Amino acid sequence: MKAIVIHAAKDLRIEERAPEEPGPGQVEIRLATGGICGSDLHYFNHGGFGAIRLKEPMVLGHEVAGHVTKLGAGVEGLAIGQLVGVSPSRPCFSCKYCREGMHNQCLNMRFYGSAMPFPHIQGAFREGLVAEAWQCVPADGLSAGEAAMAEPLAVTLHATRRAGEMLGKSVLVTGCGPIGVLAILAARRAGANHIVATDLSDYTLAMAKKVGADIVLNSGNATDALDAYKADKGTFDVLYECSGAQAALVSAIAVMRPGATILQLGLGGDMSLPMMAITAKELSLRGSFRFHGEYAMAMGLMQKGLIDVKPLISETVGLDEARRGFELASDRSKAMKVQISFG
Amino acid sequence: MKAIVIHAAKDLRIEERAPEEPGPGQVEIRLATGGICGSDLHYFNHGGFGAIRLKEPMVLGHEVAGHVTKLGAGVEGLAIGQLVGVSPSRPCFSCKYCREGMHNQCLNMRFYGSAMPFPHIQGAFREGLVAEAWQCVPADGLSAGEAAMAEPLAVTLHATRRAGEMLGKSVLVTGCGPIGVLAILAARRAGANHIVATDLSDYTLAMAKKVGADIVLNSGNATDALDAYKADKGTFDVLYECSGAQAALVSAIAVMRPGATILQLGLGGDMSLPMMAITAKELSLRGSFRFHGEYAMAMGLMQKGLIDVKPLISETVGLDEARRGFELASDRSKAMKVQISFG
Amino acid sequence: MKAIVIHAAKDLRIEERAPEEPGPGQVEIRLATGGICGSDLHYFNHGGFGAIRLKEPMVLGHEVAGHVTKLGAGVEGLAIGQLVGVSPSRPCFSCKYCREGMHNQCLNMRFYGSAMPFPHIQGAFREGLVAEAWQCVPADGLSAGEAAMAEPLAVTLHATRRAGEMLGKSVLVTGCGPIGVLAILAARRAGANHIVATDLSDYTLAMAKKVGADIVLNSGNATDALDAYKADKGTFDVLYECSGAQAALVSAIAVMRPGATILQLGLGGDMSLPMMAITAKELSLRGSFRFHGEYAMAMGLMQKGLIDVKPLISETVGLDEARRGFELASDRSKAMKVQISFG
Amino acid sequence: MKAIVIHAAKDLRIEERAPEEPGPGQVEIRLATGGICGSDLHYFNHGGFGAIRLKEPMVLGHEVAGHVTKLGAGVEGLAIGQLVGVSPSRPCFSCKYCREGMHNQCLNMRFYGSAMPFPHIQGAFREGLVAEAWQCVPADGLSAGEAAMAEPLAVTLHATRRAGEMLGKSVLVTGCGPIGVLAILAARRAGANHIVATDLSDYTLAMAKKVGADIVLNSGNATDALDAYKADKGTFDVLYECSGAQAALVSAIAVMRPGATILQLGLGGDMSLPMMAITAKELSLRGSFRFHGEYAMAMGLMQKGLIDVKPLISETVGLDEARRGFELASDRSKAMKVQISFG
Repeated sequence: MKAIVIHAAKDLRIEERAPEEPGPGQVEIRLATGGICGSDLHYFNHGGFGAIRLKEPMVLGHEVAGHVTKLGAGVEGLAIGQLVGVSPSRPCFSCKYCREGMHNQCLNMRFYGSAMPFPHIQGAFREGLVAEAWQCVPADGLSAGEAAMAEPLAVTLHATRRAGEMLGKSVLVTGCGPIGVLAILAARRAGANHIVATDLSDYTLAMAKKVGADIVLNSGNATDALDAYKADKGTFDVLYECSGAQAALVSAIAVMRPGATILQLGLGGDMSLPMMAITAKELSLRGSFRFHGEYAMAMGLMQKGLIDVKPLISETVGLDEARRGFELASDRSKAMKVQISFG
Repeated sequence: MKAIVIHAAKDLRIEERAPEEPGPGQVEIRLATGGICGSDLHYFNHGGFGAIRLKEPMVLGHEVAGHVTKLGAGVEGLAIGQLVGVSPSRPCFSCKYCREGMHNQCLNMRFYGSAMPFPHIQGAFREGLVAEAWQCVPADGLSAGEAAMAEPLAVTLHATRRAGEMLGKSVLVTGCGPIGVLAILAARRAGANHIVATDLSDYTLAMAKKVGADIVLNSGNATDALDAYKADKGTFDVLYECSGAQAALVSAIAVMRPGATILQLGLGGDMSLPMMAITAKELSLRGSFRFHGEYAMAMGLMQKGLIDVKPLISETVGLDEARRGFELASDRSKAMKVQISFG
Repeated sequence: MKAIVIHAAKDLRIEERAPEEPGPGQVEIRLATGGICGSDLHYFNHGGFGAIRLKEPMVLGHEVAGHVTKLGAGVEGLAIGQLVGVSPSRPCFSCKYCREGMHNQCLNMRFYGSAMPFPHIQGAFREGLVAEAWQCVPADGLSAGEAAMAEPLAVTLHATRRAGEMLGKSVLVTGCGPIGVLAILAARRAGANHIVATDLSDYTLAMAKKVGADIVLNSGNATDALDAYKADKGTFDVLYECSGAQAALVSAIAVMRPGATILQLGLGGDMSLPMMAITAKELSLRGSFRFHGEYAMAMGLMQKGLIDVKPLISETVGLDEARRGFELASDRSKAMKVQISFG
Repeated sequence: MKAIVIHAAKDLRIEERAPEEPGPGQVEIRLATGGICGSDLHYFNHGGFGAIRLKEPMVLGHEVAGHVTKLGAGVEGLAIGQLVGVSPSRPCFSCKYCREGMHNQCLNMRFYGSAMPFPHIQGAFREGLVAEAWQCVPADGLSAGEAAMAEPLAVTLHATRRAGEMLGKSVLVTGCGPIGVLAILAARRAGANHIVATDLSDYTLAMAKKVGADIVLNSGNATDALDAYKADKGTFDVLYECSGAQAALVSAIAVMRPGATILQLGLGGDMSLPMMAITAKELSLRGSFRFHGEYAMAMGLMQKGLIDVKPLISETVGLDEARRGFELASDRSKAMKVQISFG
């Protein structure tokens, strides 16, 4: 079977990998669709990010859906042929954080396609995937492309839950890549009222508008794009910071209301922040990292039609076009979510 | 000008009241629509409820909308002719609870149409109403009937906020009168996933289904209507108890998940509760009473089309038909929200 | 080895039980002290409580401490001869509630000395006890009697955490048995300011006063004992209801401040509650059941001298006097916590 | 009457000011003691801090206590001769933040001794002070020096409440000036278990140890002072960052446990922060600014002996020695809290 393997920056290869057999409690999946995520692009374009660097070849991919082809011993609740999303979150369930229910902080996490430990955790962009049955969430009624979106959607649902109740809130989203746009959908679903989104790309802003942002602002066109929201110490109750860019976060801090919550999703390096404003306005800056229980929640909300991710899937390429898919996904002026069809 | 005045149980009269002039910071409203609430019905049918009894004639009504006809000195942000909802919540803003932001607990509350203090607080079912400008929330784009629904909707938004984050939650609603049905809308808007509703009336259950409940159950038909939800200690994360009936609450406690939240909105007398289950499952039973800031929130969510209350307005009667309106509203098998048109 | 076995109400026997060998990850404990808890007394006096009834002989006891006498394979961090408290909380760590960190809601809980499932879960009042190493919390520096108090103290720490921040709060405690008195210690440790305690026994109230209650009131002497706290809708921010008595809870509701939290620890049957007051004052009634992580927390706070439980230990009897200990503990006018010395 | 007036950096003068008469609802206070705060020192040493600069002469001081000498019309609950602390927090009670109970975010705040608006808000270091009666909190049983400490203590109580429940938590305090040392007292009072404190001064660390820190570390002596706390992603549940120094915050982030809370109290300029760690460990960085209701809480806790601030008062100087007091207070190797006696 074929897999998409990154060897170094720009060195992406389609390689053969030996198929595996599902053991007890496991299932075999024939992959249908894999979405390209920002971290996949970091490996593809830069060989890693921050201190996390590729040290050996690694199968990429963690946004995947496919059809069940074989059931290991003792598996119940899944059927041959059924479409499932496969959660890439594989905590150990026994370390101290797992025992407290903080699975995304697991000390032994084996998240698909991560170069963090060595040997690396191999990813899920492979024609055949053996996974634990509990990773597999039925996606009946959805397309494989939608099912594969459960993963990034879960990231934004997790962040939204960290913000507490959202009903009637004013929300700012900085950075309108796939995570930012999904954050708009999540915030709206959770009851946000006014939603403003910023980015440097008119393409992504058009998408933000399409999925429900009330106002979109190109922050590259005007340094004072948010000035209208500065009155009375600031306007927004919640910020989803999805750009990972210091300039975006600093600009946003100036328009956050006293007591507001900042959800930091964007992954960036060190940032110089105006601590005086954070302190004096009593802002609450909360990191938000991956998800766990929200994967099934994401699937459920899509299945009920309560969140529609279809507009985000801007292009689907074949497995043999994977490189083109990665290049396309790297261009924020042309593509939102790019997915690979595994056949 | 005419007003709808209750003198005693079943003694409802249309009477003349002297018009008032708006003082500084006040406005005069020509009433367009008034919705009949459960507490209005208690006065109409029983002369009060619990220890709260009518002791003098009282103008009824607190769910009202109308058009601005005169602006007192210094009023800004409102225009002659503009449709507004008028919040009946009139706290003193200076008692200790107001100073903590708990306006619905104001020690000197003057909520329209309340027999609680004596002299009673006169209500808003009158052709002309003088109100503080800050009570008036612009309702541009809505019908007067919708604008009048901001009040009961605010009750359910307030309760929803008390439940904390709602995203993906399983919700049970017991009692599908107007508050129960609005609770379904509020829970859905806040991100609830699975919503089950119970009542004794097929009419109200049909309405619950229409506005979005996934499953409706007539609890009068079967004492074990909720049995399917008892597995693993219970199913629901949140209960909106809107019936005020002990039987409903007791049945619901058996199907609440450990750690679940019960929002008590229904007004009833003493209830005998299974404290062992509440303690052992660590349920959290929270009273929810009226609202304050949620009035404007309710209007805003309706204006943006994020909540649609129109299906609930089952009948609108003229001022001269007020008695018929009250009788109709008292019959839960025939009417959901009945409103009075003031011309 | 000897064990304290309950066969039926009042039928308490000292019986021989075969000793066990510690397996991998387990340790053998030579029991030093066992405290008699309210649930032990229910079995002793009534053969159970509510729907929970003895159906076979059961070793009692779950408040225990002793010295490590043997280490099973792979055990680290414990030493032969070391004094440890043994947590009776034995969740499965794999059911859905355990995976969410709600271990006290485990679907397969094996809490020492519980007649809830059948066969019953045998208790810890036995001279030799084999336990999992993770149940054992080092108690160096404490007496065995103090170490055995970690269990009931953990119950009140768990409840206190459920109340959220406690700094400067006004607290009411109803019911001054061991749990009520420990609740006073826990509330004070968490920063409570004014603490009032009620009970029907002057003996327990004297103890409440001794450990730090500011004011103690015998609610049997005057039905209006709490009247002074009714002004402005009520006074107390937090109630620890430790009596399990309807009269105590109802009286307390009348003096709770709007928005207050009621922690229900007392185990009682059904109670008739004034729902109107709960709703209108937006009280939050939260069950609190057992504990999990708070066991080690309790030991740590005692070891640092931050909580002193010694005053509560009113009598220690020998194993052969166990029946006298149970009878003494049943008389709230003469004893607070009675412990059994195992040799 | 004399007042302590700052004209520019290092230009501190004792000047005459005309006495005022208390109006209705006001009282006249004969000042007894005033504590020198970090912001007073910023004006004294640098003429301001950040963008906040002196533009006209300003009476300094906001940590004050004194005796009531005259009661304005209608004042109740205070007596001539009574010792009171005077809260410097004077919100408008009518702006939108006040109405939500967020008084420390008041848009029209008149906090004593602030150069933020122009004209500046004059401070309280004056022999006679006319204040609103509601600012005055009885301090019977305390010394005037202790009563003056209610203000900085309130700052740390406010921060502690923002951290939520504290029982059994592991706490790190960076920066052991008066706010840091009071944070240790506040955290301990709220139930913290293990408390570690860092600073660059052995003098302040000795004080931290004296008031209850378990371990104190001079972070100037070793860059790896906190290395022992890095295991398993980090150790501390709560950080009180009281230094305003980037190096302290960055070092602390590395030893915070996943999900930990950082309370930012120290006032500093921009800081470059490791956002990757904040995001990946899902830390919550919350600004904490001044206080409001916690002023009376601070006084109450001191009056009951639950918090003892006396060890912090390292020197008291006379009004005519004010300059010496300011210089002494500026030297963190020699003084903790320096207070001025007004006679």
